Amino acid sequence: MTELRKDPITGRWVIVCVDGDGRLPDLEPVDTDGDREDCPFCEGREDHTSPEIFSYRNRGTYPNTPGWFVRCIPNIRPVLSSNTELGRRGLGLFDLMNSIGAHEVIIETPHHGQDFHNSSLEQVEKILSAYQARIVDLKKDERLKYVLVFKNRGRRAGSRDISHAHSQVIATPVVPIQVKLELAGTRRYFKMKERCIFCDVIRQEERDGTRLVDQNETFLCLAPFASRFPYECWILPREHQARYSQLGEGELKDLALIFKRTFARLHRVLRDPPFNCMLHDAPNTVPQKGAWKTIDKDYHWHFEIIPRIMRTAGFEWGSGFHINPVAPERAVEDLRAVSLEGEAVTT
Amino acid sequence: MTELRKDPITGRWVIVCVDGDGRLPDLEPVDTDGDREDCPFCEGREDHTSPEIFSYRNRGTYPNTPGWFVRCIPNIRPVLSSNTELGRRGLGLFDLMNSIGAHEVIIETPHHGQDFHNSSLEQVEKILSAYQARIVDLKKDERLKYVLVFKNRGRRAGSRDISHAHSQVIATPVVPIQVKLELAGTRRYFKMKERCIFCDVIRQEERDGTRLVDQNETFLCLAPFASRFPYECWILPREHQARYSQLGEGELKDLALIFKRTFARLHRVLRDPPFNCMLHDAPNTVPQKGAWKTIDKDYHWHFEIIPRIMRTAGFEWGSGFHINPVAPERAVEDLRAVSLEGEAVTT
Repeated sequence: MTELRKDPITGRWVIVCVDGDGRLPDLEPVDTDGDREDCPFCEGREDHTSPEIFSYRNRGTYPNTPGWFVRCIPNIRPVLSSNTELGRRGLGLFDLMNSIGAHEVIIETPHHGQDFHNSSLEQVEKILSAYQARIVDLKKDERLKYVLVFKNRGRRAGSRDISHAHSQVIATPVVPIQVKLELAGTRRYFKMKERCIFCDVIRQEERDGTRLVDQNETFLCLAPFASRFPYECWILPREHQARYSQLGEGELKDLALIFKRTFARLHRVLRDPPFNCMLHDAPNTVPQKGAWKTIDKDYHWHFEIIPRIMRTAGFEWGSGFHINPVAPERAVEDLRAVSLEGEAVTT
Repeated sequence: MTELRKDPITGRWVIVCVDGDGRLPDLEPVDTDGDREDCPFCEGREDHTSPEIFSYRNRGTYPNTPGWFVRCIPNIRPVLSSNTELGRRGLGLFDLMNSIGAHEVIIETPHHGQDFHNSSLEQVEKILSAYQARIVDLKKDERLKYVLVFKNRGRRAGSRDISHAHSQVIATPVVPIQVKLELAGTRRYFKMKERCIFCDVIRQEERDGTRLVDQNETFLCLAPFASRFPYECWILPREHQARYSQLGEGELKDLALIFKRTFARLHRVLRDPPFNCMLHDAPNTVPQKGAWKTIDKDYHWHFEIIPRIMRTAGFEWGSGFHINPVAPERAVEDLRAVSLEGEAVTT
């Protein structure tokens, strides 16, 4: 039996199988061994990459040498760069823009084969802090309206060449359409209720409990009501916060904890699945104006994690309509059943 | 060098490489031989499928026996069906709906291995006419707000089990979000100009010529200015027409011709690529009301064809932002260079 569920933020409908046989589609663990020998992201091969933009490293070690924990470099094949002037122009009916922006790579660990699920808490915290540092820095450029931080793990998730754990940062002069849909939804709700819709969803999910994967003092991991993908997880701050950059140091620790626990669960249940992880943050609104006046009250940053264990077809691309064979309530049962003992991620 | 291009209808921005080296990603011809032996869609195996809803067949032959050209059957694993009552209900903040709808399969040919590119014109016309017949029939049910006709060819395009050429029809009680985005865009433009934006785009592309793949008296095939995927093609009626069901018999012939020519080109340039093909049609507006009052003037049906020669990553899913390594102008050059002589598709 299926059910049509509407995402309250974007208005997107999803077809969810609520009594599926729970048979998982073909799982395919990510291969990180194939390129281990000549991986340019491993410690000791710093000269194989572009010079670093910044790094967290041991005191007394020098840039572009070993001794780092997290390292940020420019993407060698950037899809956007800041070497051109920002210019919008028309072409008859059409609009186009110079491809101004930035495209960076955050190497998450010096050690090949490590990822969120098997890194130390301190390491995960450093990665999440590096996200923050790059966002804050890139948003200083007022031409850049949005900074998208995302991660592709595994070929199925679109990761092309290098299996060494890394995230990417792309800054764009326009706000991406998915985020615009979210922003429009949160604004609409705020106008009506003078409350943040994410906050209301969080309160309801806390009370209800059936879609709650995990929680700690500061964060919540939930399987969204209208999950588009099997085992989709969102990580959100429990209290209202529009911008990822507002996160304090103690909060970063809690975020690292729920991150590591969530990825450990996904790793166990889906046997090291390919995934995409995306940070949805508020756009760059300095100077703040117009439609974005209320954004600090109506928007709520969060991470979206989508395991890529199914192929998407024409129906999804053509309609925006997703068919999800695993109900989020069932995914939550599986994820919660994972024992995290011995994983050093219990509080 | 890349360029940011905006789709004038939906407002979606795409990053287009305008001077890429043109190296095509890993091409992988579709395999139709693996399941030839026990294909349930082949002629003579009619008893291996559910009883047909309708078919085009030789006079004097009976339903569910050989002698057919195109055959429509219910999907054996429907994601939506009409056996329940339409009911919207709330769950706190959330909206949900019974999964009312329809899910059908159109078997496009009795012969395994045939597809748009190598079928006769008459056969393609019958397939396109079958689309029409199913849309007209399903739209009689006022509860069904949208009928989506689409086709997945090849495993990469999400086609799961059966390689025998087939399309699918899914009727839903809500309008899918991609179509809603288009409808909002066309309505906005119509309010401003009192003209259909698709018509304006078509006039401009006819004049400009650089993104025109093919044309005949009634139809146009173009590579959209803000193509999301390499070699993306749209087929549209040159004159304004909101609904696919308005297409007359002579026009269906012209549509079959441009269809066959377009797929022959794609087949040659991309070596039998996996693809998705989707019909974007006006929603079911009987009775017509409210926001859809002007739909017959502002909307313009069309087919979108997306070859699936690249994997999509987190960036695309998380942002709705696509990166297209092959500029549409370059794709058009390749597609136009294909000689169609001897293909029996010249006028």
